[in-house]
Parts: sequence; C-alpha cells; structure tokens
Amino acid sequence: MTQSFYSLDPQFHQQPFDGRRRVIIERVSPEIDGGRYPAKRVSGERVTVSADIYGDGADRITALLFYRPAGAVGWCREPMRQTVNDRWEASFTAGEPGVMEYTVEAWIDHFVTWTSGLRKKIDAGQDVSLELLIGAALVDAAAGRADGKDAMRLDELAGVMKSGQTAVAVEAAESSELERLMHRYPDRTHATRYDRVLPLQVDPVVAGFSTWYELFPRSWSEEPGHHGTFRECRRMLPLISRMGFDVLYLPPVHPIGTTKRKGRNNALVAAPGDPGSCWAIGTGDGGHSALHPELGTIDDFREFVRDADTHGLAVAMDIAFQCSPDHPWVKEHPKWFKWRPDGTVQFAENPPKRYEDILPIDFETEEWQELWMELKGVFLFWIDKGVRIFRVDNPHTKGFRFWDWAISDIRREHPDTVFLAEAFTRPKIMSRLARGGFSQSYTYFTWRNSKHDLQEYLVELTTTELKEFMRPNFWPNTPDILHEELQLHGRPMFLIRLVLAATLSSNYGMYGPAYELCENVPVMEGKEEYLDSEKYEIKAWDMDRPGNIRAEITRVNHIRREQPALQQTNNITFVRIDAGEGREHDMLMGYVKRSDDDANVILTVVNLDPHAAHSGWLRFPLEAFDLPHDHRFRVEDLLSERTWEWDGEWNFVSLHPGSMPAHIFKVILQP
Amino acid sequence: MTQSFYSLDPQFHQQPFDGRRRVIIERVSPEIDGGRYPAKRVSGERVTVSADIYGDGADRITALLFYRPAGAVGWCREPMRQTVNDRWEASFTAGEPGVMEYTVEAWIDHFVTWTSGLRKKIDAGQDVSLELLIGAALVDAAAGRADGKDAMRLDELAGVMKSGQTAVAVEAAESSELERLMHRYPDRTHATRYDRVLPLQVDPVVAGFSTWYELFPRSWSEEPGHHGTFRECRRMLPLISRMGFDVLYLPPVHPIGTTKRKGRNNALVAAPGDPGSCWAIGTGDGGHSALHPELGTIDDFREFVRDADTHGLAVAMDIAFQCSPDHPWVKEHPKWFKWRPDGTVQFAENPPKRYEDILPIDFETEEWQELWMELKGVFLFWIDKGVRIFRVDNPHTKGFRFWDWAISDIRREHPDTVFLAEAFTRPKIMSRLARGGFSQSYTYFTWRNSKHDLQEYLVELTTTELKEFMRPNFWPNTPDILHEELQLHGRPMFLIRLVLAATLSSNYGMYGPAYELCENVPVMEGKEEYLDSEKYEIKAWDMDRPGNIRAEITRVNHIRREQPALQQTNNITFVRIDAGEGREHDMLMGYVKRSDDDANVILTVVNLDPHAAHSGWLRFPLEAFDLPHDHRFRVEDLLSERTWEWDGEWNFVSLHPGSMPAHIFKVILQP
Repeated sequence: MTQSFYSLDPQFHQQPFDGRRRVIIERVSPEIDGGRYPAKRVSGERVTVSADIYGDGADRITALLFYRPAGAVGWCREPMRQTVNDRWEASFTAGEPGVMEYTVEAWIDHFVTWTSGLRKKIDAGQDVSLELLIGAALVDAAAGRADGKDAMRLDELAGVMKSGQTAVAVEAAESSELERLMHRYPDRTHATRYDRVLPLQVDPVVAGFSTWYELFPRSWSEEPGHHGTFRECRRMLPLISRMGFDVLYLPPVHPIGTTKRKGRNNALVAAPGDPGSCWAIGTGDGGHSALHPELGTIDDFREFVRDADTHGLAVAMDIAFQCSPDHPWVKEHPKWFKWRPDGTVQFAENPPKRYEDILPIDFETEEWQELWMELKGVFLFWIDKGVRIFRVDNPHTKGFRFWDWAISDIRREHPDTVFLAEAFTRPKIMSRLARGGFSQSYTYFTWRNSKHDLQEYLVELTTTELKEFMRPNFWPNTPDILHEELQLHGRPMFLIRLVLAATLSSNYGMYGPAYELCENVPVMEGKEEYLDSEKYEIKAWDMDRPGNIRAEITRVNHIRREQPALQQTNNITFVRIDAGEGREHDMLMGYVKRSDDDANVILTVVNLDPHAAHSGWLRFPLEAFDLPHDHRFRVEDLLSERTWEWDGEWNFVSLHPGSMPAHIFKVILQP
Repeated sequence: MTQSFYSLDPQFHQQPFDGRRRVIIERVSPEIDGGRYPAKRVSGERVTVSADIYGDGADRITALLFYRPAGAVGWCREPMRQTVNDRWEASFTAGEPGVMEYTVEAWIDHFVTWTSGLRKKIDAGQDVSLELLIGAALVDAAAGRADGKDAMRLDELAGVMKSGQTAVAVEAAESSELERLMHRYPDRTHATRYDRVLPLQVDPVVAGFSTWYELFPRSWSEEPGHHGTFRECRRMLPLISRMGFDVLYLPPVHPIGTTKRKGRNNALVAAPGDPGSCWAIGTGDGGHSALHPELGTIDDFREFVRDADTHGLAVAMDIAFQCSPDHPWVKEHPKWFKWRPDGTVQFAENPPKRYEDILPIDFETEEWQELWMELKGVFLFWIDKGVRIFRVDNPHTKGFRFWDWAISDIRREHPDTVFLAEAFTRPKIMSRLARGGFSQSYTYFTWRNSKHDLQEYLVELTTTELKEFMRPNFWPNTPDILHEELQLHGRPMFLIRLVLAATLSSNYGMYGPAYELCENVPVMEGKEEYLDSEKYEIKAWDMDRPGNIRAEITRVNHIRREQPALQQTNNITFVRIDAGEGREHDMLMGYVKRSDDDANVILTVVNLDPHAAHSGWLRFPLEAFDLPHDHRFRVEDLLSERTWEWDGEWNFVSLHPGSMPAHIFKVILQP
C-alpha cells in the first residue's frame, strides 16, 4: 500500500542537471495540486495541454507534447503551438479507460532561429554569405543525426548552401524540404523536459454522460404489500429503459440488521414486520457481500444485472461502509470498531444525536491494512457479479486515503469501473474526494434554485479548476432529499428541475418513482425527508397516477441521447435574457452548449417561475460562432417540435409554466 | 551544481505511508510553483502561512505550523487557527537573512473532540458516566506521554474523572488546567505532515525598503571635462545622503573596450577622446574584476564604498555579463563565445540590427561549468571589496538556471546580498527571474501613466501571487529611458512621477542628476533615449540649475524614512475619488498604506494632470479600520505641513500642478 498511485517513469523526469538547458517549461495545465492527482477525461475526449515556455534571449523555440498510456514503452508526440503571452498548447485524444501520462519537452531551435534571422538580413539588404555557412553547419549536423536517404539529402542541401552561389544557397536554405527535414532531425541535446510526468485518469464514456434512475427493488413485488425480489423487479427494466435511462441505481441490497432497527418514518423502535432501512447493513445472513434473503439469490442478482444490460441499463450498486450491530464483521473483526468501557461497540453519533442502529468503522484501527483489503474486496465481489458502477454512501466519513488507494487499485484491474461520491458536505472535501479518484460527484444542485445561484454554481463547476477532475451528477431529488421548492410548487417545479438537471449537467439522475409521480409531501414542514419514506417501508407505487411526468422525462432523456452537445457539462455558456430596459431577467435563464466540432448547438431556456408566464429578449452569442450580429438562423424546440426563424442576435422568448416551462432549442446556424 | 537549491530534510517530509493518517493538508500558501521556488520576506517581516486542513467525519483537528532556519536542528511551532472554509493559518517572523523553511502538521484531536461532545451531551441532559470513562482513558494515555509532575497531575485528573462523582469529574474534565496539559502532550501518532517542506528566502531589510540614486562616477571630476575618479566622486556622498537616498548605484566601472567603441549619441564610430559606453566591458587592462584605470585603484574603490557606508549609502554595482571584443575572456576562454566561419567572434544582434561592440556569452558552451564559476567569481570579487548590492543588467539574456544557481550559492555564504534584475521584458520572464532568486525587479512602472493603468498594475503586483516573490523597484527614469510623459510635460510631471514612484513602491530609484534637473530632451522625437546621453560621454552637471527638484526629492525621501507605512509595497489599497455625480475621477488618484500594527496610516493623493488643477471627493475607507462612516479624524499633509479635520468618510481634495501635485497625508484616526 503506497501513497502514490501512479507508476511513473522515474528515468524520464529526472534529467541530470545540465546548465545548457536554456528553455524553461512551467505551469503545465492541467496539473492538479502539483501533479499529486490526475485530471480526468473520458475515452475519446480531447485533452488540451498548455504550458508557459520561453528561453533567455530572443532565440526561437520548438516544443513537443509527450503522451502515452501510463507505463507504455515510448511516447507519442505532438508539436505544440504558441498562443499568447508565452503560452504553448497541443492536444491529444484520451484513449482506453485507464491511466495516461503526459509531459512537455522544448528546446532552443537554432535552425528556426537562423532561418528567421536570414530572412530579416536579406530583407535589410545585408550580405549573407557568412550566414549561409553558419546555416550549412547546422544542416551538416542534422545530416549526422539522420539516416540513409535523409542524411544524403541533408548533405546535398548543406553543400548547396556552402556553394558560394548566394541565390541558389538561399533558395535551398528556405526550402520547405529543408524545413521538413530539419524538423525531423532536431538537435535536442539541450532540450528541457518538464520536471514532472502528469497523470490523466481516463474513464469510460458513461462516467461523462449518464442518466440515473434509483429504485428500491423491494417495493416491486408483483403482489402489492409483499417484499419484492430481483426476479419480480426485472419487469421494470424495459419501462425504465424506454424512458431513456442508462444507469439503474439500487440502494443497498444486503441483509438488514434487526438490533435497534428503525421503524416507519424513522421511528426509534420498529414495529413487527417493518423492513428497516437498507443502510443498516449486516445480519447473521451476511454483510456487504451478501444479499438480503428476501430479494433473492446471487444468481438472481446476476441475472438481474444481465437482463438490465440487455435493456441498456447498467446496474449501480450502493456501497455504504457502515454496519448494523448484527454485522458479521463485529464479531470477526472486533478491532475494526471502537469499544466503549461498558463492552458495547461505539455507535454513530453527532452529539447530542445518536444513531444506535449504525456502527461506524474505525479507520484508525491498528488492523487498517486488513480492513482496507476487506473493503476493497467488497467492490471486487460485486464486480465479479457484473457490477461496474458504484454509488458510494458518505465517502467523506471514511478515510480519504482509503479511497485514493482503493479506487486506483480497483481501476488498475478494472478501468471500466465508475464511482459516484455521495457526499453532501463542505466544498473542499467534495473536491478532495473527486481528486482522490471518484468519477462523479453529487453536488449542491438541489439547493441552487435562483437564476443567480444556478449560474454562479455552474460557472464554478465548469470554469474553475474543478472542471478538470470533478464531474457533477445533478439530482433533483433523492430518497433523503425532497427540496422545499418541490414540496411547495409541485408538478411545474418538478418539470423545471427535470429540465435543469438534464440539460445543465451531462450526468443526472432521480429517485425515480417519487419523481415521476411528483411525490411532494415531506415528513413535516421544514424537513427535507419524505413522508412515509421508502427508506423505512415497502411502497406500492401506482406509476400511472394522474399528473405523472413520465412522458416529459422520456422526451428530455431522448433529446439528451440525440444531441451530443448535451453529453458534456463543461461546454456551457450562459446567455443574456433581458426583461426590458436593459434589465437582466430574473426568471428566464438560458444557456448554450456546443459539441466540440460545433456541429451540434443546443440553447436551453427555462422559466424558473412555477406560477407565472414570462417573456423576454434573449441574446444569442453569434460572435462566439464568428457570425455577424444580424445573422439569420433557425431554432427548433425539441420539446414542442416547433421551429422559429431568428433574425439577428436578439430574439423574443416566452414560456408558460402550465405546459412545458422550457425550450430546448436545436440551433441551426447555417441553412 | 545541482538543480535544487534548497537543502531540505528528506527524513521530515517522507513519512512512511500509514492509512490511519486521517487529516488532509493541502494548498499550503505561500507555495510557489509547488515548492520549486521560495516565497520572499525581509528580516522582521511577518510570514502568514495558511492551508486547507480537514479530516473525514466531524472529529476536531489540531494543527501546527513548523518553521526554522533551513537545516537547523528541531523546529519552532505555532498553533494554527481555523478561519473559514476549512482554511487554517498561523504566522511567524522572518529571522536573519538566509533561507528558512516551513511546513504544517495536523491530526485528529480526540481529546478536543471528546470535550466538545461531552458538553453537548450534558446540555442535552444525557447521562455522561460512560463518557467520563472514555475521556479518562485519553487522559491516562497523555499521562503516559508526559514527564514528572505533569504526568502525576494528569494521572490525578484521570482519577477524578473515573471517580464516579459526575459533578466533580465533569469539572476536572472541563478545567482549563486539563485543557492546557492535554495540549502539551497531544497524541500525534497519526498526525499528517504536509508532504513538502517549503523554502522562504529571507532578505536583508534593504531588499524591501530602499531608495536608489544612480550616477556615473566619471562625470564627477572636480575639473569639468576631465574623467572623474572615485576619489573626486566622494564629495557627492554627503549630498546624496542628505537627500535621503540609501543606495548609490554605479553603472559598470570596468575597463571600456576600444574595438568598435560607440561615440557620442551612440555613433557607430567613436571620435578620438570619446570615453565609450561603460557597458562595453573589458580591455587588456582587465574585465569584470578590474576597474577602469581612469576611475582609480581597487583601494580607491574600497575607500569609496567605506566612505559611502559612513554616509548611510550602500554602493550597488552593475553586473553586465557581456564583453567588448577586447575582453580578456575572449582570448582566455574562446569556447565561451560563438565563433563565425570567418574566424571572428559572433557579436550581439537582433536581426537586422547589429551590436558589434558587444559580444554575448554563449550559455550553451560545453565549458558551462567553468563559465558559471567564473561569473559567480565576479560577484564574489566585488563582495570582497565591500559591495552587497548588485544591479544585474539584462539577466533575461543569460541562462535562467545560471541565476538560480549563482544567486542561491552566493546567498548561502553572503545572505545579506541583494540582486536587482534589470529586465524590461515579457511578464512571465520577469516573474521567473524573481522566482529564481532576484531580490528586486525593475518593472513596467515607467510605461504605466494613466490612473487605470497604474491601479491595475499595482493590483497585479500586490494582490496576485507576484506579491510573494517579486519586489518591484520603481524608476521614473534610467540612463536608457526618458519617457515621453517626462519629455513633454517637464517639471510638473517629474514631480508627479517622483511622488508616484516613492509612495507606490517601497523600493524606488532614479537616474539622479538627470532627474533632479528635470532633464527632458530626447535624442529625437519618438525615442526614449536622452540627447547627449551620459552613457556615451562625460557630463558636467550644474546641480544648482534653476528648476531643479532637489528639495522636493529630499522631502519625499525623508517622509518615506519617517513613515513605516511607506516602507512596504503590498500594503496598498486604492481609494475612490469622485469627480461628481458618482463618476470616478480620471486625474486624481489616491491610495492608503498602513503599517502592520495600524499605528501608521498614510493616504497619498496625486493629481496626474501636469497642466490643470483638479478637485474631487475622496472616500476614506473608515470601515477598514472598524470605524463608523461619520467618524471625525485628522489628516496632516507631510508635503505642505498643513492639517485638515475630516468629518466622515467623504472629503474634498484639490491639487494644483503648479506647486506640489500631491498630498502625502498622515492619517490620525484617533485624537
């Protein structure tokens, strides 16, 4: 178990010190915390690497980006181009899931310096006969580095440059052939290599674009009121799939403790027959690597996963590293827990609150290595059963270094795994979990409701350093969180939050049955918990209940599938919408997303007010597409299937919350 | 010769990996380029170190700042306090010039966590008898770590806590005595140390506060028209000292080459008797470690330096690593230069321009190690003659890595040395030189003239990362640069730029005789060079010429000496001055500087318009001093010696360029 989880090539970045390396390479980006953590991309995504590169004096520089799958023999190279203010950049495409690495090399290019000086001297009418001999020496040296035919040709060109026939010599010196050959055999003797090789975590595509549906399998018995099974729950798979979801997330499916079991609505004492919270894990039947007997067998589970897969649904497992007092680990590994002077195990508490049905694991145990292996083994167990996506419960209450190690270790063998961090906590802790390897993160989206708050949050997520490693997954609800906005404003607000989650973030999800049905009754006023929460009881949902929004969810999800621009998050730009008199509209919010090749441009406009219609003037940023302010173009609302011709940058928009409170426009800029 | 120039203690920051270290320490500040370069302070200056520190879960943390002179045995410690957003900080005072180092350690503090839980449980009326036993075990463990009396006392207190008498036990548990003792013997078993020890360059005080006067000794013969000597120039020392300067900077004083010597006004051919540019260094009489024979002997120079010192003036030497074709190095070390095919040495050029009197040194020479030793030897030679301050000419055209090495190597033996980088080049290169060890840097101040440009530049210098390592030295003129603003607007503009340089930056300087006399004639329109530049000829200055601003310079310099707030640069805040109708004034600029203890507060107001009087309403930021908006206070103009009573934050100011175009107010906030 080691602290550094990327095996780099120490030979490469430990150049012996040589004072003749005149080029400085600094501030390579992306570089997270000085290279301690990887930036993240998904397979096929572009990775643009930039750096400050400069030398002393006025000599010209050539710079290369080096990249490869970590540990591969040899490097791929890409020439870097200078942008502004001594910044250089180049790009490559993220390959298969796994770790890649990249670094930068640059050197004073005497040949390029020389040719540029030659031209200036000629233009100034200076005698260049001596210059040509200086250049010929550079070409001779390149011939020495070259092979076969190229060496011979360089020899010949050097000869011409030394011929004394100025016109012919200059022609040879400035020929594109010589430029190409010299570029092929550069003098890298005094090249500087950036002193770090930086890691890149390449995740599977689903880590960057995913649509999650959460359900409790136990509520899907074919006989209402009974405990559901995986077999019975399989009938839901085609329905969920048809709605356009691709990840099916199951809360914990393990045996549920009986000691101190919670009753309905979180009652301290369970009534007979209460099924308990599935987050109180472990009984004599087993712990994190067992199934709740009433759900079925491991074979049933395997089949469920396979069946889901045939419907395009990846099953996501909930990993909650905490134990009921009945969990086998308590007896088998007593040192993994804290014991109190009265001989009982310390339960979870947040004084003065006590959670006696839950025992936290002591990450300071002297047996931490055994503990880590066992916990990692839980992931491996379910990977073996076909699971690749894990939603990790409260990772911020377990050791950060455990996650660093476990995730990178698991990904080494199983680079197609995806880990979603369910941490609703302070910003720096959320960032640290993402840096530690989690592929996706729950966010504060639920609590960002005004236009100002939403825009500010998206700008933070998509334009600061966070964009390099923290992939948001937006959830308008969870079994724990029914936001007041949904409680108060019902169906129109469910539609608003649906469109926001689905179009602001390429990863989004919902606690499905409750969301589809616009379930909005809290356990009490001022609380975010559901009344009669499914966490503590088996529900029988009437999925065809009037007012459900299945059709709208389905439509939005299919739009996401068809429009590549909605399959990224960091490609967002907010647009201005005026209410009149140059005043920014409070309730209408708009944003553009564009695919990398600009072939797909989506403009979403949302009316944030669940009670009133609003209209305003929207400014489409034509200049960002190099189009004139008076350009004529077309927008097709993919929700209503209506089309408008827009004439220039400012256009009228109007949205009523009664029907669909949003437009998702496909923008067709060229006829 | 090695790349890392700070010898750190590898034992310290290479903790063996232990998964039980639950605290994360990140983003320690200041940390320049991931610890590659030191932050800078001067002796006696406060160093505030901050870091993101947090653990998993809700347990409490204790954090310590560690610091010491680099390589010392043992560390000094300072407890860190939590500010906001998981940020912690603590301070220490920079000691003697040299390198210091600092790092951070933090751990989950189970005792602090326990006491805070105990109080909450008591307040909630819970039974705490078991809790007291848990706490007693922590106290017992501390007793085991403690010595003698403290161990006995901890034992006793643990006994009380175990006594079963709840009231007495709680009193002991919450006693300040126990808190103090537990703080003295913390359990650091699983403490996290930040994975880097960070360097701090501590410079002598003069690096942070200095007032430079530049003169050419050869112009100060007692017989006008003759070549001046060090002996003759000594009569200037009391005059310059009385004006309030503390650094006397001499352009190169070495033998001046004769081959391709430049004539007056930079003529390509020198006339007989032309003294040449003192930056064309080296003849048969010697090079960088020799004196121009006409200036005097090494003993004369030593005496000059000593005499200057008795007048409170440190002599700053110009180090320009370039050679005239007559420099001894050309023969002794031919490999340090580039040779052309015709057997001549490559001169300096910027095609199509040629500088045939100057040979650049080839920093790619295979003899780079010998070269570096020799160049470093030049500094050591003059250090031996009493010089401690070096103004380095065009350091950006020499190898960056040479400066890194040379400056740190010299400072190891001579930590009281100061290096000023004379680089007027691109921003990232200026920053890199400062990071490489230069104590002070020339800046773009000369070319920042409007209120907007000045404010923006100062904000960049004093609030971005630059503030940690780049100390600006503001020069309103140099022998090379007579800005158009000075050319066009004469004396009023000389006064404006004087006050700006002297009060915006704690380090400032002037090419003295020309500035005192408001010399403002360029060699030709559109050029920044002086007509009849002293660089190419011996001048005879009439220092009593009418219109000189010696009195004003003297006054400003003495104000700087008396007001500690003006002896720092990063302590600046700009204030709002309105022209009326809420419109920011274009021409009146104001800024506050305050000493660390707030005992000294200076408000400078400058009229940037050399032709017209301006008045406006200035808002003094009383809230920054925790004073009400209607607070009454007094301002004394240290230039005019007039005093005003100000009533509240908004106050009228009016400045005429004819007399003094500025106020330097001492602000007396409390009667």
